[in-house]
Amino acid sequence: MKMTAWYNGSFIDPDTAVIPIQERGHQFGDGIYEVIRVYSGMPFAMEDHLDRLEKSAAAVRLTLPMPREELEALLLEALERSGGEEAEIYLQITRGIHPRNHAFPKEDRPALSIIVSPARVLPEEEQENGIRVITTEDKRWTQCWIKSLNLLPNVLAKQEAVEQGAREALLIRDGIVTEGSSTNVFLLRSGTLYTHPATEGILHGITRDRIIRAAAEADIPVVEETFTTDALFDAEEVFITSTTLEAAPVCEINGRTTGSSFPGTMKLRNLLQQQIRKEQNQ
Amino acid sequence: MKMTAWYNGSFIDPDTAVIPIQERGHQFGDGIYEVIRVYSGMPFAMEDHLDRLEKSAAAVRLTLPMPREELEALLLEALERSGGEEAEIYLQITRGIHPRNHAFPKEDRPALSIIVSPARVLPEEEQENGIRVITTEDKRWTQCWIKSLNLLPNVLAKQEAVEQGAREALLIRDGIVTEGSSTNVFLLRSGTLYTHPATEGILHGITRDRIIRAAAEADIPVVEETFTTDALFDAEEVFITSTTLEAAPVCEINGRTTGSSFPGTMKLRNLLQQQIRKEQNQ
Repeated sequence: MKMTAWYNGSFIDPDTAVIPIQERGHQFGDGIYEVIRVYSGMPFAMEDHLDRLEKSAAAVRLTLPMPREELEALLLEALERSGGEEAEIYLQITRGIHPRNHAFPKEDRPALSIIVSPARVLPEEEQENGIRVITTEDKRWTQCWIKSLNLLPNVLAKQEAVEQGAREALLIRDGIVTEGSSTNVFLLRSGTLYTHPATEGILHGITRDRIIRAAAEADIPVVEETFTTDALFDAEEVFITSTTLEAAPVCEINGRTTGSSFPGTMKLRNLLQQQIRKEQNQ
Repeated sequence: MKMTAWYNGSFIDPDTAVIPIQERGHQFGDGIYEVIRVYSGMPFAMEDHLDRLEKSAAAVRLTLPMPREELEALLLEALERSGGEEAEIYLQITRGIHPRNHAFPKEDRPALSIIVSPARVLPEEEQENGIRVITTEDKRWTQCWIKSLNLLPNVLAKQEAVEQGAREALLIRDGIVTEGSSTNVFLLRSGTLYTHPATEGILHGITRDRIIRAAAEADIPVVEETFTTDALFDAEEVFITSTTLEAAPVCEINGRTTGSSFPGTMKLRNLLQQQIRKEQNQ
């Protein structure tokens, strides 16, 4: 496939300089984004992602630069131009190009960028045997349900994980596991699935929703309730979810082995993948 | 004066597109900044600003793109080219241009941008009679001492103020006044000056420090202690400080008049302005 980019009205080479210094994404992180996974050339759960984009936009009072149907058609055109089969569509909307001032600019001029690139896929070995994670303090703002560009704490947490040979950092606020730096966290205990409730403090993951739906299909009770770091170690299985990871089992937390077989996680992941295939065929 | 800009190695027209979509400032707010005030063609407290820049850089593990002396020389060259007398130097360093991935890029390639523009000055009328402010919830991350580009909560708070006919939003966390959306907050009560201690939760303002120094010169006792929203209304005077505002008295909070004469604030502002003049003449 060919990496494909769009900025404010034109398809461009992804490396083209298109943004001046005084742009509100660049200077304030004043914008929102989504990442949509493409399977066999078809975007998965695009409507859910665009619903969430609209919610984020409303929360920060950002006007979408075009009607939803046009945006949808544009994303599909970008995907088609890329020829991507297993791909990711990244889209970002900022409050645009304006002289630097905290308050909103007088004139509404949101800027949209799109990048279609090959999907990042978790290596088979980790999909089966699990990934290593660490825990670290959740230092983020109180409104993590908004998918905003203010991602510095997430960047720092992820880097901490990477330097400890781990894939992800689980974030702990006041003893509670909120979510990962770019994932949601689930645990299975005595046949029940637990995950943090969809409060303002966590991202309402599309894959999180799909896993809850999968649990319902499998008659696994779901409890949306907070849990502590200790509960991670007491659980039979821990897994994390995201658009790019789907559902990845966790085999080690802070250097301590927590599991080596993941029957519940595998069952839910299979049901998620069935949902994906089913929607591809509609 | 001529607005003057520099990006990654060259002086440029400020409106030139120099940044591609996949840049870590633009996609993650992964960077830091400073704003330096220029009086009569001379930067004020430049060493303090560069000290803080180095602290922010260390906190997010960002390498400065050049030695400090070179950066300083470059800022002075930019200022000279601008011909600015009453000006502001904005400088920003991001983790640079890289494909999108939360963890740090393998290769260290920080990007520096500089903009020199005319100083924003508070209208004389408000300098004398005070400004209106509102209070709103402090929704920011826990590391506000780092002067990072993750400014969306600040943007939203400032906009809330503007829409209520106010100049600034004072941020309240758990009943405590932390600081303003782009200022520090002080109050005078029974001849004593109070301000929030320089914890990780607030920016350690350069002007905040200078006002504390001015209070020492004026034999005004300083207490760095948290205070509540109620304390704002009980104070004899409230004022806010920043590089661009210097010290601005507050006459109204949430639509309620809180003061009309500000002898203490004026005294401290005069002492601050004396510091400025003195350093200009060194």
